[in-house]
Amino acid sequence: MKIELERVTPAEIEKRSFEIIESELPHPIDPSLAPIIKRVVHTSADFDYVDNLCFSEGVVEKALRAIENGACIVTDTNMAKSGINKTALAKHGGEVFCFMSDPDVGEAAKKNGTTRAVASMEKAAEMDRPLIFSIGNAPTALVKLYELIEEKKLKPELIIGVPVGFVNVVQSKELIMQADVPYIVARGRKGGSNVAAAICNALLYMLGRD
Amino acid sequence: MKIELERVTPAEIEKRSFEIIESELPHPIDPSLAPIIKRVVHTSADFDYVDNLCFSEGVVEKALRAIENGACIVTDTNMAKSGINKTALAKHGGEVFCFMSDPDVGEAAKKNGTTRAVASMEKAAEMDRPLIFSIGNAPTALVKLYELIEEKKLKPELIIGVPVGFVNVVQSKELIMQADVPYIVARGRKGGSNVAAAICNALLYMLGRD
Repeated sequence: MKIELERVTPAEIEKRSFEIIESELPHPIDPSLAPIIKRVVHTSADFDYVDNLCFSEGVVEKALRAIENGACIVTDTNMAKSGINKTALAKHGGEVFCFMSDPDVGEAAKKNGTTRAVASMEKAAEMDRPLIFSIGNAPTALVKLYELIEEKKLKPELIIGVPVGFVNVVQSKELIMQADVPYIVARGRKGGSNVAAAICNALLYMLGRD
Repeated sequence: MKIELERVTPAEIEKRSFEIIESELPHPIDPSLAPIIKRVVHTSADFDYVDNLCFSEGVVEKALRAIENGACIVTDTNMAKSGINKTALAKHGGEVFCFMSDPDVGEAAKKNGTTRAVASMEKAAEMDRPLIFSIGNAPTALVKLYELIEEKKLKPELIIGVPVGFVNVVQSKELIMQADVPYIVARGRKGGSNVAAAICNALLYMLGRD
């Protein structure tokens, strides 16, 4: 079989990718949400996200203001942390944190019989900075965030709720959409660290790429 | 709406997830490939991979022997590097490398008008160690690997070809499946750093989890 490669310069690859995504969208999408939806499709090649992604009222504007005001991002995986554009975030004064491998988190989880993700969220709740949570793996993290918000122990600027999987993933996302918090959620089982990072980067790039 | 969470202890979450995946498989799968296929579904919640994943003849056995013999893993993203279980690999003497952010790679890419992924693969080809490539992002990396293999400049132990996206992704995967190299490929547009890491981890866990 003869394989024909498309001739595209390195600089054009992303632009061309977004043109293809635009041309294959199953239906028109809200222009204010389009940069986020398209970047998630770009990172997954999965058009299911066009309909899976759920946005609370005015969430994009709130998220952008939070980033501009120096909000930090807390993730539940080092993969998501690795994928978030930390240089772009630092321009606004923010940092990315993942506490999953911290020894005190491991100890707290063991002591309390919880997941390390839960212990990570408890640790983050102690931070005295405006926080965006980007959860790409652990539904237990989302459930804990819901509880902390209900108990008035935490008031996040934004929760990106895109854990992936089969046990309590669907439920944890529905739960967080009932909380009093701005959210971007991938309804259903799909999501992941790559999606969590892509949504953060889409927001950052809406504030300028260079 | 009342949301019911399933009661599962932290230790049981992964086991329960794999039981659900097993029960929802669209058709029986080759038992020797099942740990890889199921782990990719686990990381993506996407059953498309049950049919997308392509394996060259005897690839699992070859990959496991390569890992046991101390093969190193080269990835095209720091996200994939972050997701691979480096402790499990180190037990066999291997390390994970990602050259994408190396200054010399950036300079070589600029000078040659290629992507950093291409320059990364050229850098890896200079290494004097047995190599497994795990490509989750850049089709240009796969195309370069194909060329290096054809030119007899590189003889990888295994290529995990799972870039994601819209420009030359499908073609690059078909190309690598025509090369004389053991491969695991996600045919089509889907893939990603998470899938690249999951396949590495599935192989590592086949050699023992603890």
